[in-house]
Parts: sequence; structure tokens; C-alpha cells
Amino acid sequence: MFREKIKVFDCTIRDGGLINDHQFDHRFVREVYKALSTAGVDYMEIGYKNSKKLFSSAEYGTWKFCDDEDIKRVIDGIESRMKLSVMVDVDRVDIEDVKPKKDSPVHMVRVASYVKDIDKAIYLVNRFADLGYETTVNIMAVSKALDIELTEALQQLEKESKADVVYIVDSFGSLYQESIEFLVKKFKSILTTKEIGIHAHNNQQLAFSNTIEGIIHNANYLDATVYGLGRAAGNCPLELLIGFLKNPKYDIRPILDLISKEFIPLRQKMEWGYIIPYAIAGMLDEHPKDAIALRESDKKENYREFYESLVGDDLD
Amino acid sequence: MFREKIKVFDCTIRDGGLINDHQFDHRFVREVYKALSTAGVDYMEIGYKNSKKLFSSAEYGTWKFCDDEDIKRVIDGIESRMKLSVMVDVDRVDIEDVKPKKDSPVHMVRVASYVKDIDKAIYLVNRFADLGYETTVNIMAVSKALDIELTEALQQLEKESKADVVYIVDSFGSLYQESIEFLVKKFKSILTTKEIGIHAHNNQQLAFSNTIEGIIHNANYLDATVYGLGRAAGNCPLELLIGFLKNPKYDIRPILDLISKEFIPLRQKMEWGYIIPYAIAGMLDEHPKDAIALRESDKKENYREFYESLVGDDLD
Repeated sequence: MFREKIKVFDCTIRDGGLINDHQFDHRFVREVYKALSTAGVDYMEIGYKNSKKLFSSAEYGTWKFCDDEDIKRVIDGIESRMKLSVMVDVDRVDIEDVKPKKDSPVHMVRVASYVKDIDKAIYLVNRFADLGYETTVNIMAVSKALDIELTEALQQLEKESKADVVYIVDSFGSLYQESIEFLVKKFKSILTTKEIGIHAHNNQQLAFSNTIEGIIHNANYLDATVYGLGRAAGNCPLELLIGFLKNPKYDIRPILDLISKEFIPLRQKMEWGYIIPYAIAGMLDEHPKDAIALRESDKKENYREFYESLVGDDLD
Repeated sequence: MFREKIKVFDCTIRDGGLINDHQFDHRFVREVYKALSTAGVDYMEIGYKNSKKLFSSAEYGTWKFCDDEDIKRVIDGIESRMKLSVMVDVDRVDIEDVKPKKDSPVHMVRVASYVKDIDKAIYLVNRFADLGYETTVNIMAVSKALDIELTEALQQLEKESKADVVYIVDSFGSLYQESIEFLVKKFKSILTTKEIGIHAHNNQQLAFSNTIEGIIHNANYLDATVYGLGRAAGNCPLELLIGFLKNPKYDIRPILDLISKEFIPLRQKMEWGYIIPYAIAGMLDEHPKDAIALRESDKKENYREFYESLVGDDLD
């Protein structure tokens, strides 16, 4: 029943860190690493590799930079076959910060890029591939891409890049299953030598079903986060994905324990999930930033006013 | 773009009442009625029509019985084109309690039935049709039905019943989009003279996507509840469904106001939604009753133990 090529890719710390400036302490990240390893998860993305010239380490936490020493402190002594990933954003990474793979605890580097930055992304991903890493390019905000520009970007990725995987990223949580079917088929038809990945956001409670839709159409790299943790509405819940997959190597129990012990208390301190302003942003295919600002204001439950503010812009 | 035959069917009070023994006060139900009417929702199910010989009206609230006088009190003076529905369960209704449609504020009666009770359901639904009501049969726990028995039940419904609509009810929130596709196509192939409906539960965050899957395959009666209110994990959120549908007759704004003013405060007093024990019950295709009991105990966050208790039963 199960498809061996499927890889479950956890990005709890990396995407969740967008809520708290990556200020998770080492103990917490170690608990996540331990549980994911025991659960048989294939990859864990532990954070971003950002340039300290651009971001202050006084302002941002450890996992905004992912120094090898911090990673080693978290994984030390834990038996694991899970691979580690870091994400880089176009224009925010110092390539010199990334050592050759043989000298690093990291196995994979993922490059996040908009369609317009695809040339920069290809340059970066090829550099990381040359350093020995597994690599992906994650195309953000794919719901906003013009089809003709997306086609050209995918053709370039197929011809010019060494990326192993290209991801569909539903940054705004606005895609429905028919759009996912269309996109996965499109990606597969152009990227004939690469694997396809899905990174879904949960604004409209569609992250899990869109991930299943990806699986149906042969996407094999599946992003998820524990208890759906992630910026704004969050992501595809890892526990649901593990519950769905039939591969006996995955075990949901350590994830359930982790949620009981760490994520239920965390939920008291951090907000994410099904929250109406994020749902509105998703259905209108808008960036969540206005909804995030609303949730930090005293108008946090004024949904109608927020909806009107998004649909009311005149754009002649 | 829109399909005119689609009917949005709200069951907030009926399904939500399963959490609080239908103890919603008249003011609250009136606010719901008003907002749904303004939003252009097609049907509102206001409760069950249960026999007072079987259930005590001291123990249960108004909407367990739905006396016409209570309904009239709630709708009086509100302009509305929305139709009202009540649900009956096989073996729990006194047919004598249901007046002819011309003497009642109710437009539709829905009969909830397991496959095994289909003969009783057909008897009931034909009686209500003869009284002048629009009618449906809602096949509960369809995920547990043997295919051959389901086929026979559907054949009987097509030949012997006067029901206008037959519903697929995913009582355990266990179905994925491929199963919904299979079931809607099966229902449509047998029930050639009837409409198909979808009533989805949200244990695995799939209620909305399964409803969309139903729409794709031509189900036209779509159940939803405000803010997903409903027993255990709840239902397809009405606001997401309205956001998805393109028919200009629907307006999301009154629903957004209703959530801000009534459902955010209600959420402090009643529990429903994405809660891990309900997700576990969904992925294991189990009735939510054990998970509901867990949530009322001091082990409410002991997810692993709960999971083990469900998978641990030996059934030789």
C-alpha cells in the first residue's frame, strides 16, 4: 500500500519560529528532535541560515542562524536516522557561513524563492549542491504567480539547477484541491528529473487535504509541523499526516507524547491555527501580515471590519 | 461559475446542541437565524424532533423537541427566505408530533438512519413527505457500512422512498477525499432521481475539503455550521464554505459578525474543534464517544494512552 519514495519533512522549528523570532530554547528543540527521530520522520528543518550581517542575534533567536554548534548541542547523544535541513532565503544568506556538508551536521539546504528571484535561487542551490548537500527550491506564493512566468521558472529549474526537489508553497493558504492537482501535474510535466514537494498553509483548514491531494498526484516530499505549529494559521499537522500514511516505519506515538507534554502548554503562550482573520486572508489569497497585525491589536475579533478592509481596496 | 442547484444547509443548532443537550436560549438561536437569513443560507436545521415520551424536557433543552411555538418565537418578525428543517432519528420520533406542513413553520424533515435501519427510515420519510415536507434520508456512519448493504439500501431508497435528497454522513470524520469521490459517484449512480448531500465531521480537518470534494462530484446539499460548531471535532465551517462558493446570493459578512459577537464568547464555555483525541478517533474510524469521555476526565491530554486504548483491543 505505501509509496516508499514519500518523505515526511518536519518544519516545526523553522516555520514555528516565524511566530517567536526563532526563540525556542535548546531543551525544547532537543525534545522535538528526539520525538521526530523516534517517530521515523525523514527530515527535520531546524531553522534558517540567515546572515548575521543582516539580522541581529540580540533580536533573533538561535534558529534564525543555525550555527553548527547549536545544532550539535541539540542532537548530541540522540540516536537518529533523521536528516537535518536548514532553509535559506534569497538575498539573506552569506554563502561563506555554509561549510561543506562533510564538516556539518546538516544534510539538506532548502532555498526559498519567489518566481521572480528564480535566477538567484538557481545560483544559490547549485552552490549548496556543489558543497555536497541535498537541495530543494521552494517556490513561495505560487498562488500569485503568472502561469507563463511559473512555466519559465520551472523550465529553468529543470535545465539549470541541481536541486533534487522543487516545492509548491501555498504561502497564503488559498489553494483548493483542484488547484493543487493542476500545479502538481504541471510541476511534474516540466520537472521530469526532480521530485515534487508540497508545503501547505492551513488558513482554510486545507493544509492536510492539499497535502493528500499532492500525494495522490505523486508529490513525494511532504512538509508538516507538530500540531500544525507555524506562522498565522500554521501548517499541515504532522500527526494527521503520519496517521494517514501507511508506511510502517512511521510511529505516531512519540508525536502524541510531544504534543501532550510540550505543545499543549506552548499553545497557551503562542497563537496559531484556525483563526478567522487568517481564514479571510486565505480565501482572499492575501499575505497574512495584515491579519497578524490585527491579532496584535485591540480589534482582534473585528472580523467584518477586517474583511471589508481587504475587499475594499479600489485598484483601477 | 456557480452551480445554482447548490444548497447551503446550516445545522449549527442541531449538531451543536449535541454538546449542550440543546440548551441554547431563544436569544442565541434568534441571532443565528437572523444572521443566516441575511447571509442567504438556504436551510437552517433548528434541532431534533424527539419524542417527549423518550426524553425528558427537564433534562434536555428546547431544540431537542422543536415545538412549533418555540420556533415561531425565534423567527417572529425577522425577514427571511431561509427554509427551516428539523431532524428525526429512527425510533425516537412520535409521528403524531409532526403536523402537516401547511400548519407548521418547518419546511423540511431529515431522517437520520444507519444502513441497517433503512426500512424504518423509508417508512418515516414517506410519512413526512405525505405531510407535505421536503425530506432527506441521512445515512450515518457510512464509513462502517458494508458496500453490498449500502448498495441495497440505496437501491431501496431510489425505488421505495419519496426522499428528495440522500446524504452521505461521515459520522466519524474518517473519510479522505478519495473515499468521498467514490461514495458520491456511487450514490449518484444508484440514486438517479435524487439529490446527494454531504455532512462531514472535522476530526481530521477534512470536513471542508470533503465538502468541496462532494461539490466537485455533484453533491448539491452541503451541511455546515457556524465556526464549525458541532459535537466533538465539529463540522464543516460555514464561513469557509460561503467563502468558497461563488454564488452572489451568499454574503459572508453576517456570519463574520455572528462569530465575533456570539461564537468567540461561546468557545470559552463549550469545547469543539481540532482536539487530538477526536483526531485519533477519526484516523481510526471510531465513534467519538470514548474521546468525549476522555475530554471530561482528568486524563484529557493523555493522548498516547488514549491511542493505545483504541488500537489495543484484541478482536480475534
